[in-house]
Amino acid sequence: MKKKINRRKFLRNVGITTSIVALAAHKSKPTSAKEIFNWKMVTTWPKNFPGLGTGAETFAKTITESSGGRLNVTVFGAGEIVPAFEAMDAVTSGAIEMGHGGPYYWKGKVSATQYLSAIPFGLTPQEQNSWFEKGGGQEIADKIYNKMGCKFFVCGNTGPQMGGWFNKEIKSLKDFKGLKMRIPGLGGEVIKSAGGTVVNLHGGELLTSIQTGAIDALEWVGPYNDLAFGMHKAGKYYYYPGWHEPGGVLDCFINLEKWNSLPKDLQKIVETSAIATTQRITNEMIAGNNQALEILIKEHKVKLKPFPDNVLKELFVLSDKVMKKLISSDPLSKEVYNSIINFRNLSIKRSEVSELKFLEARSKFLI
Amino acid sequence: MKKKINRRKFLRNVGITTSIVALAAHKSKPTSAKEIFNWKMVTTWPKNFPGLGTGAETFAKTITESSGGRLNVTVFGAGEIVPAFEAMDAVTSGAIEMGHGGPYYWKGKVSATQYLSAIPFGLTPQEQNSWFEKGGGQEIADKIYNKMGCKFFVCGNTGPQMGGWFNKEIKSLKDFKGLKMRIPGLGGEVIKSAGGTVVNLHGGELLTSIQTGAIDALEWVGPYNDLAFGMHKAGKYYYYPGWHEPGGVLDCFINLEKWNSLPKDLQKIVETSAIATTQRITNEMIAGNNQALEILIKEHKVKLKPFPDNVLKELFVLSDKVMKKLISSDPLSKEVYNSIINFRNLSIKRSEVSELKFLEARSKFLI
Repeated sequence: MKKKINRRKFLRNVGITTSIVALAAHKSKPTSAKEIFNWKMVTTWPKNFPGLGTGAETFAKTITESSGGRLNVTVFGAGEIVPAFEAMDAVTSGAIEMGHGGPYYWKGKVSATQYLSAIPFGLTPQEQNSWFEKGGGQEIADKIYNKMGCKFFVCGNTGPQMGGWFNKEIKSLKDFKGLKMRIPGLGGEVIKSAGGTVVNLHGGELLTSIQTGAIDALEWVGPYNDLAFGMHKAGKYYYYPGWHEPGGVLDCFINLEKWNSLPKDLQKIVETSAIATTQRITNEMIAGNNQALEILIKEHKVKLKPFPDNVLKELFVLSDKVMKKLISSDPLSKEVYNSIINFRNLSIKRSEVSELKFLEARSKFLI
Repeated sequence: MKKKINRRKFLRNVGITTSIVALAAHKSKPTSAKEIFNWKMVTTWPKNFPGLGTGAETFAKTITESSGGRLNVTVFGAGEIVPAFEAMDAVTSGAIEMGHGGPYYWKGKVSATQYLSAIPFGLTPQEQNSWFEKGGGQEIADKIYNKMGCKFFVCGNTGPQMGGWFNKEIKSLKDFKGLKMRIPGLGGEVIKSAGGTVVNLHGGELLTSIQTGAIDALEWVGPYNDLAFGMHKAGKYYYYPGWHEPGGVLDCFINLEKWNSLPKDLQKIVETSAIATTQRITNEMIAGNNQALEILIKEHKVKLKPFPDNVLKELFVLSDKVMKKLISSDPLSKEVYNSIINFRNLSIKRSEVSELKFLEARSKFLI
């Protein structure tokens, strides 16, 4: 995987005596030969999937260019060398150096990962980033990923998701009873608890499933990704907000041994590139959602519907109950969940006097 | 400013013949000697000022560590080598390589800079970042900063600011008539137009000014910075939201010649570090504001007040009028303003179905 281009070796090849070489190697430390690392990054996304796959490419390119080619990262889409959900195994084993995906994909390995993705009624993307850096999140996430032999970095956020596409109106929590819905993660647990049947389907199967009536509802991501998949051709109502995923965290996981083998400057480049990529994915999501939403409304005449207040209230109460039950048997899940909820509760007042009130005024008074 | 540690020169010193040296220089390209750059960064902030000064330090440290010491950046607080508002002159002249501040500080040089800081009822921090990367903002900003001989990067955002500290209640737009208020930038232009007297004071003079009644109101930043300055000891009401600065952009400006002299990998490191720093400053602001707001409310019993809807509506209409008048005489100001407003208008619908509705539900239903 890595190739050592060593100054000493090179100079030996051109026939310079050992003593001079030793001196050179000593004296020229700031400019000494550096090891070259050629790394593979496997992802859970199809190659160049909007926002997520393109985010992985941005991440790899940033590392490669910032390191002047000392750490070359090549991205492989889902299925190119390993199937999407075997990305973590490949990295844990050390066969592949790093990966890019979403924490909840690994809940079968370490249950606590799913709380790192998004918690129903939890944190916005910016609060989530702040929690990772300033609220103890990085330390907890590393503890969780170390169990899979990996170093963790946040590496992207989908932004607040939509509530999903529904073929019937949702007027009360009872309307979820018997509803067949594609909704993965913790949101799915809440819907199950409300009496729904939760179905897990891959992106490619979604449109046909709702068109044929095999499912009644689905949530995917948001306008940008949903438009690309043609969801508007089937779902009758497009509900909001995405109470279940106010900000979907993407993860970068690096084999611990490989991570530890990197010199400090390259480690810093990887860390910094992950933070920058997180912001750049959010940038793409905002711009992409802006335009896609306009197309969905104006061209495709999509019917946008807010969940009624009584439904959101019941979902809030139910989410709290379901989450508390889920974490009760696993101390690590409890630790991450409680830490995020504490940060959220402290964030609520601040968001009320800043984003919330500002966005409300901006929407209300636009001429 | 920069010191060349050159392999060729070094080898000459240890007495190796030119022909071997030439060969070495050619063949060993991936590991060749690299120039060391020692750069100074002047800032408009006091050294380690919370969020902003500390952000500048984070930025410098990230560049230095990512480059393995090939680009060493040393930060100087306001007044350490040049006064705060002479930072741009020092960088334009090339005496100093780079600076960190806020775009509207340079409106005396290029009037259009002020629209890059924040526009009343404009963009949230995340929308602002998205506009810079995906909405044409970077290109416009470079055009503006090139006029000052600089390359531009966003390098931080204060987050949504507060409306300010007031010694009297604001019940209608008429209450701004005759009000002496410290409010810089475009928000100040709007208050002036509402009949207020706008005073420009430095951070250190603010508290005394409002305590002695020399001014009636002031806006500074938000809970984190306001608490640090003790504003709660004087202002009677703490109003929200910060309609005038929904996200205050911080800038990094680099002397164009110095920027062009950097090798591509170091340029990439600077660019990436600026994006990462933008997110990290927002992270610190969110966590800091969360805690400071709780202290202000619980310990200092600060009275938080929303501007009434009629006031926000009138400020919205007035802002639009004042901005349109301001930009009418300057094509560059017009270009940046219109570009941001177009992005905002497209953002409004998306924010309604995502952040706004989500934050509303989260606030309403917390048990």
